[in-house]
Amino acid sequence: MKNQDDANRTPVTVLGLGLMGQALAGALLRAGHPTTVWNRTAAKAGPLVAQGARLAGSVRDAVTAGPLLIVCVSDYDAVHELLDPLDEVLEGRTLVNLTSGTSRSARETAEWAARRGVTYLDGSIMAVPEAIGTADSVLVHSGPRPAFDLYEPTLRSLGAAMYLDADHGLSSLHETAVVGLMYSTLNGFLQGAAMLGAAGVNAEAFAPIAKTATGMVVDWFAGYGRQIDDGTYPALDATLDTHLAAMENVIHESEFLGVSTDLPRFVKALADRSVSDGHGADSYAALIEQFRTSSS
Amino acid sequence: MKNQDDANRTPVTVLGLGLMGQALAGALLRAGHPTTVWNRTAAKAGPLVAQGARLAGSVRDAVTAGPLLIVCVSDYDAVHELLDPLDEVLEGRTLVNLTSGTSRSARETAEWAARRGVTYLDGSIMAVPEAIGTADSVLVHSGPRPAFDLYEPTLRSLGAAMYLDADHGLSSLHETAVVGLMYSTLNGFLQGAAMLGAAGVNAEAFAPIAKTATGMVVDWFAGYGRQIDDGTYPALDATLDTHLAAMENVIHESEFLGVSTDLPRFVKALADRSVSDGHGADSYAALIEQFRTSSS
Repeated sequence: MKNQDDANRTPVTVLGLGLMGQALAGALLRAGHPTTVWNRTAAKAGPLVAQGARLAGSVRDAVTAGPLLIVCVSDYDAVHELLDPLDEVLEGRTLVNLTSGTSRSARETAEWAARRGVTYLDGSIMAVPEAIGTADSVLVHSGPRPAFDLYEPTLRSLGAAMYLDADHGLSSLHETAVVGLMYSTLNGFLQGAAMLGAAGVNAEAFAPIAKTATGMVVDWFAGYGRQIDDGTYPALDATLDTHLAAMENVIHESEFLGVSTDLPRFVKALADRSVSDGHGADSYAALIEQFRTSSS
Repeated sequence: MKNQDDANRTPVTVLGLGLMGQALAGALLRAGHPTTVWNRTAAKAGPLVAQGARLAGSVRDAVTAGPLLIVCVSDYDAVHELLDPLDEVLEGRTLVNLTSGTSRSARETAEWAARRGVTYLDGSIMAVPEAIGTADSVLVHSGPRPAFDLYEPTLRSLGAAMYLDADHGLSSLHETAVVGLMYSTLNGFLQGAAMLGAAGVNAEAFAPIAKTATGMVVDWFAGYGRQIDDGTYPALDATLDTHLAAMENVIHESEFLGVSTDLPRFVKALADRSVSDGHGADSYAALIEQFRTSSS
């Protein structure tokens, strides 16, 4: 039974076997896809070969193994280092580029692919390697919809596969937006951990409380998102003036504890500017106008 | 049956009927507690009186209604404005102060309460008013453990009631740590919304992706917390050097889109300092050292 099923699975080539590339190839193998792998350091392919992957001897050899090429390397320069030297073997194949980069590099690579006769999907992974192949993994894709539809069953082996837009830049743009959010959230955790640490509370003890609190905040995103799209910010929960008082508490508490006040001061300066602009009685979403403004 | 049960419930007084105070009194009433309320503007008590609350004519009248006094007003100055004028009627009662403030104000209020013969618990609410009385509400308390244990069944009407420590400052400290984390997370969302908005993507469409991504990050808190407590930061997921490259993408993308680069530059400056300190091959948790350092 398994062999019959597997015979219908799309053959896939995976270039790049960092932690993420290994996870991608592993998930494809588990889903029954004939999987060809290549990596600059061939030794990294060992565990995958043990699971049934074929290790190609060259990039060219890897690419010619099937219609679908997934690339996940360190950056877009590395993508081009691998693929630019190839001749017409790329033509007619579909490249799903899961490498991290900016929307500009994604659009430039889309133009490059068009010149080579390559169907191009730019994808971004919103998951840690261990989550690949589970429901905790989200992959967003942009580029031609028919190509996404054709390979969606394959991409679904990697996690929840979402299509965004024909604009090749949008998946990278979502990724950078999400990455920025992640660092901002982590910094908030570290500020809290530093504050509590100065009072003798372990960071690990703070973690579940921080998780609960952040779980509340993420439920406000949709409502604030609607306000941002509408351009009106009714303070259904709390006003910016109220938030400012809470922000001052964070600064005072940090000063009192002798930890850095850089992040709390940065947070308050943004809110101060928004209140100066007349948003004191509005919701937190009014701060979007500060983020939209090009930095001086 | 209900009346018999209710007869055993502790009578509670709630001072302050802002959105949060109203939610607290409402949850106590739903749990069957005889509830006396007072607010500077008595009209706010209307809906609660309709649910069975007794509206006291004065703070003194409210306080004498029972052994347990819950106060939730705008700040600690407002707490003292209400309670300082009272004479010995406070003696022997328990005050649970759910007003937001710093650990210093909590400790000062604990000293004030000791002088008055008042048993004092300082509490902090980690919930929006609508969540009060549900499992989505967390309240942390610090002060004498026996007082918490005595009134825990009552406090549990308000949400998950947690005891932290005998140090009265710790609940406020947790609250300010959590508040800082919340603003940092919201700012990350707003930066992403501004970036995507500049590319024509609605903030509401970004919200579910932002929520998924933040849901991943909160699962890293415990592991990073352990590293912080241990003082070693092995890069099990990604190194700071790798994070720096991603941070640069966020800056470049923001510049390209013409939105503010203040937050991404702030994030990167912190990481740059940590890498300069020799943590390039460590995990993100190594940044804790930047947050611990008193600002210049």
